[in-house]
Amino acid sequence: MRIIGIDPGSRATGYGLIVKEGNRLIHIDNGVIRPPEKAELAERLLYIFCGINKIINEYSPHYAAIEQVFMAQNAQSALKLGQARGAALLALANAGLNIGEYSAMQVKSSVVGYGRAAKNQVQQMVKALLKLPEIAQEDASDALAVAICHAHSTNLRKQLAEAGRNR
Amino acid sequence: MRIIGIDPGSRATGYGLIVKEGNRLIHIDNGVIRPPEKAELAERLLYIFCGINKIINEYSPHYAAIEQVFMAQNAQSALKLGQARGAALLALANAGLNIGEYSAMQVKSSVVGYGRAAKNQVQQMVKALLKLPEIAQEDASDALAVAICHAHSTNLRKQLAEAGRNR
Repeated sequence: MRIIGIDPGSRATGYGLIVKEGNRLIHIDNGVIRPPEKAELAERLLYIFCGINKIINEYSPHYAAIEQVFMAQNAQSALKLGQARGAALLALANAGLNIGEYSAMQVKSSVVGYGRAAKNQVQQMVKALLKLPEIAQEDASDALAVAICHAHSTNLRKQLAEAGRNR
Repeated sequence: MRIIGIDPGSRATGYGLIVKEGNRLIHIDNGVIRPPEKAELAERLLYIFCGINKIINEYSPHYAAIEQVFMAQNAQSALKLGQARGAALLALANAGLNIGEYSAMQVKSSVVGYGRAAKNQVQQMVKALLKLPEIAQEDASDALAVAICHAHSTNLRKQLAEAGRNR
């Protein structure tokens, strides 16, 4: 069963793909989608949307997970982040994927076992759990972390139980 | 030359279509896209995206205009609005439309001639300019207003000059 994790952002949107086989988690791919800096907003959103579409087409994930975001400093940055997150969510929904949303605290709890873990601890655990040769780029590592969180989640177990089979 | 105007919102996204023929503005259609209230966020965004796609397919507008939004009360509401606006922008960009973005003050200046005009004055002017039988629903009226603003704008004149012809 393949899971795509997304860490949305207006400058950089991280993605990570993992496979869950029983209790094993296997890394497939990770990376960062960076819209051209000078592009207009609409073009940047389209870049994120098409970037995620491309990855979905390449790996055909069964499930998607994305981080909930609450930590915007102000309304203006929240608006920017919201637009980028909207583009990412839309790409996942448009592909018909079931989407799990998790707070940063849920992701940290799930990956490190401690909801207030430091960023670096999360990155180290992502590396260890997925046997990565090195720590992934920050946004990509966050995307892998949310995918791992989804793989561990009861939501997913419920979805699988409902589907009546382990894809 | 057909222009689609969009007033984005997470609960209601207004749309308005007008034709500019020389200096005349003619109303084609207006309405509001309301995602099901109980739907999940991703589903709501998809509803907005598909709703706008449908309107674009029906009327094949040549240009698009959308309101810039700055007036969110807090980061949380800005995030919501941003996601909805992202979905709307993406639908316009995905259709290959050239998008004009205007502040509320620019829209009011353009429609009423006064940047601090009251909401009701804008609605009355939209009704008068487009010869509507009655004032359009609020979000739809705002969408028509931003389309009118685009029709009046120098941006559009520049785009037309560059295109070398009046479509």
